[in-house]
Amino acid sequence: MSMTRRNFIQSLGAVAGVEAVHRTMQALGLSGMGEALAAAPDLPSGSGQGKSVVILGAGVSGMTAAYELAKAGYRCTILEATSRAGGRNLTVRGGDVIEEFGGRQRVEFDRRDHLYANLGPARIPYHHRAILGYCRDFGVELEVFTNDNRAALFHNRERFGGKPVVARQVLTDTRGYIAELLAKAVNQGALDGELTGEDRERIVDMLVRFGGLNPDHIYKGSNRSGYQGEKIHEGLKAGDVNSPLDLSELLKADFWHYKLHYSHFLNANPTLFQPIGGMDAIVKAFEARVRPLIRYRSVTKEIRKTPEGVRIVYRQAGRDADDAIDADFAVCTIPAPVLKDIPNDFSPETRAAIESIEFVNAVKIAFQTRRRFWEDDHAIYGGISWTDQDITQIWYPPYGYHRDKGILMGAYIWSQKPGTRFGDMNPAERLRAAIAEGERVHPGYAAEIESGVSRAWARTPFQKGGWPRSAHKSPEALQRPDGPIHFAGDQVTGLPGWQEGAVLGAHLAVRAINERVMATK
Amino acid sequence: MSMTRRNFIQSLGAVAGVEAVHRTMQALGLSGMGEALAAAPDLPSGSGQGKSVVILGAGVSGMTAAYELAKAGYRCTILEATSRAGGRNLTVRGGDVIEEFGGRQRVEFDRRDHLYANLGPARIPYHHRAILGYCRDFGVELEVFTNDNRAALFHNRERFGGKPVVARQVLTDTRGYIAELLAKAVNQGALDGELTGEDRERIVDMLVRFGGLNPDHIYKGSNRSGYQGEKIHEGLKAGDVNSPLDLSELLKADFWHYKLHYSHFLNANPTLFQPIGGMDAIVKAFEARVRPLIRYRSVTKEIRKTPEGVRIVYRQAGRDADDAIDADFAVCTIPAPVLKDIPNDFSPETRAAIESIEFVNAVKIAFQTRRRFWEDDHAIYGGISWTDQDITQIWYPPYGYHRDKGILMGAYIWSQKPGTRFGDMNPAERLRAAIAEGERVHPGYAAEIESGVSRAWARTPFQKGGWPRSAHKSPEALQRPDGPIHFAGDQVTGLPGWQEGAVLGAHLAVRAINERVMATK
Repeated sequence: MSMTRRNFIQSLGAVAGVEAVHRTMQALGLSGMGEALAAAPDLPSGSGQGKSVVILGAGVSGMTAAYELAKAGYRCTILEATSRAGGRNLTVRGGDVIEEFGGRQRVEFDRRDHLYANLGPARIPYHHRAILGYCRDFGVELEVFTNDNRAALFHNRERFGGKPVVARQVLTDTRGYIAELLAKAVNQGALDGELTGEDRERIVDMLVRFGGLNPDHIYKGSNRSGYQGEKIHEGLKAGDVNSPLDLSELLKADFWHYKLHYSHFLNANPTLFQPIGGMDAIVKAFEARVRPLIRYRSVTKEIRKTPEGVRIVYRQAGRDADDAIDADFAVCTIPAPVLKDIPNDFSPETRAAIESIEFVNAVKIAFQTRRRFWEDDHAIYGGISWTDQDITQIWYPPYGYHRDKGILMGAYIWSQKPGTRFGDMNPAERLRAAIAEGERVHPGYAAEIESGVSRAWARTPFQKGGWPRSAHKSPEALQRPDGPIHFAGDQVTGLPGWQEGAVLGAHLAVRAINERVMATK
Repeated sequence: MSMTRRNFIQSLGAVAGVEAVHRTMQALGLSGMGEALAAAPDLPSGSGQGKSVVILGAGVSGMTAAYELAKAGYRCTILEATSRAGGRNLTVRGGDVIEEFGGRQRVEFDRRDHLYANLGPARIPYHHRAILGYCRDFGVELEVFTNDNRAALFHNRERFGGKPVVARQVLTDTRGYIAELLAKAVNQGALDGELTGEDRERIVDMLVRFGGLNPDHIYKGSNRSGYQGEKIHEGLKAGDVNSPLDLSELLKADFWHYKLHYSHFLNANPTLFQPIGGMDAIVKAFEARVRPLIRYRSVTKEIRKTPEGVRIVYRQAGRDADDAIDADFAVCTIPAPVLKDIPNDFSPETRAAIESIEFVNAVKIAFQTRRRFWEDDHAIYGGISWTDQDITQIWYPPYGYHRDKGILMGAYIWSQKPGTRFGDMNPAERLRAAIAEGERVHPGYAAEIESGVSRAWARTPFQKGGWPRSAHKSPEALQRPDGPIHFAGDQVTGLPGWQEGAVLGAHLAVRAINERVMATK
């Protein structure tokens, strides 16, 4: 890019804003394949002068909306039901208290930098450009989150004698068998109608490499799965590679239903990130910028339309009567399971949309362990082991490597039935149940655990769930404002459960409000 | 594990050492699937009293040997030819000087924490337990090295119009086509002889999930490869997924030769690590422990056997005559291409083994860029892009994310012909050639680059190469001592080019020397 062109684009930015720059760079073929990071609305300075917005919820979406609107001169107030900002972005440390309907837990972790648990969102994919853009702009330092660890385990109680199998072997052997079978079919001429002669030859060569086949196109195991004996690698001299797992047993196990392909799903693709020191570094960065706008412990009681805009009736803790706040617009980020029970003036269409959104009964259970046995004994550094039990996953912390204790995510559940089962237990029962299941993945598990804490999102005040179930998502209905009330949060986007959704939902509302204001000027 | 058992094992450790603990834990089924971290020799204290060892080379292998032997009471001297420790473990920063036969480069990087390049080893796989054990014991802090980044690029000048293709798409589409073809073959009964009826049904279900096939078992593209348009992900609402790449073109490209399967190779498997701040954190940690034992700028001139042991003739810089040092044993870590030309008393067998080891002409070229365009424009955070040009790879730094400049590895070459081609250029020519090739992967590349530096290992004094070529490796011949001379370094192991090999080679020599000493006591 020549200096002249760069200067032109910089000048354009000053005059027409980041979006125009972005569109121009795209037109000039300069913006690359991903979206440029600077995706924030960047409203013209002062465009909100004299206008007021009340924002319901100081989660990531609400704070994003307040940050962008306030920058443009809007008078913003955030009503936050709890005493903390962040919403579902929740990092817990020793001494923290977790409130649930009918339960209260104190986090008994040691107070050390690396002993924390992200009980809400825990990872940021590389293509979540809006939240990453704020991380960059706010100086939130990132480190890699390891999703895909080939040393982690697959466990199915009915298969392989109920013993966990190393991911590296499951992946290598599955690819090996697929490659061998397809090579046979091609070599037998079974796919002559599908492939040209040239492609037939090339595909067999490809399969040999894809699957690690021998020169006869047979899969006999591969050094990709590691070597037998103590060492995983070759060490001083090549030994015998691991024998392949049995194909029928691999097919009977549930690994391939989706677990085996996990890293190929777009939001699980490497590279993923997490803020250093806990996901709530993002909350702290936003909160530092909008704190004067937040009224904490202020529960929304009514959402009303008025001739001039909106009126929100709310109760602030410690006050013996409700208060009300009037504004030109509202941005409502309250999760649907909570929102549907708040008296409101919504249209029937909006009410139906809110009612239709069902939230996932997500549960996370975190344990402090006396040593990092997964690193010491199994060479597992970060990543996820899978089991067919209700705990679903065990996450090994991708932080604090090699230190003397660790916080293990002993369960991450997002299916309705096991989520309900664990949610219905009291906190002590949850820990016992998760330990019993974990023991089948890691014999000796119970003795390693020092303390634990759980978060059942469906039982969480002012949340009542993890995120909108994909099967029930109808985000577009809430992408339109209902009179002066705009909706935000991950629930109005195609990215439920992700902070990127929370930010994009806020951007949508912010842009729409500003367009309305501009149109009347 | 009960407290009693734990206490027993701890007591055993005190009495019998780490190895006994390790063996006992294995016998009790407690040590897990990976090898326990504590793999160092842990020689009985004082066992080397009165014995001397001269160690040739202060690389990772030489310093490991000195550290372990000195701990056990051996009198150690390390002769190091250059003025720095570390050998091929080389991290460069602004102001450093790189010496080559016939050339000298000054590193012009800005002096900032995140602007460094690892021109030697750059990653540590999770199963390299010996080097990881030292990192833990020495407090070398680690962060994840991203090898496998689905946003990185595959580039082949002859395919897809010479335009780079995103890894995510190549992987998704390749799996899709393989799954579709195998499902067809199975459904047509072409593999009835290979699979039971049950397995046939299950494997088709598996292929649907493996490849992202539609309900008719056809691959029509998948959201795993991302969505068309600006955003990679769904954003506010699901759009159209990317169209599949053409199968014939995928087969004609060289991607599948090995690049596409790279993360499945054992030493490229996630999780991989790097020390925070540069790979030479490992060098500094060892050097801090053995510095008094090192004689820097001391070039080995002769390796002789004497009736009592060994005599090493060497020349220290600034001295006008050779010196000699006598010892009971030597540990020789000098790379074969250098060692073969040092006058010695080796047996014919040893000489032949040394002569047979051919080193790779590895070349690395690092650029400082004015901005992190790969992150800003392409959402590429760390990882590797591949090209069929001589530069082979472009590495995006897996550190310093979101900061304002970056160090790009603009070439990592390990094939003989391109390595020789680049090695034969002068440093300025190398940079120009690497920029010209990089420009085809990232149009606009040249304008982003501020300065560059290269390291051609074959032209490096006292190294003369990157590491032993696998095809020529005969490590076992040098695993036996030649009289009082033991060999170490990665060249005596099945892990050439890896620091784990350097450490394991040192451990082998250390254990063997100590066994000999013990046998005579």
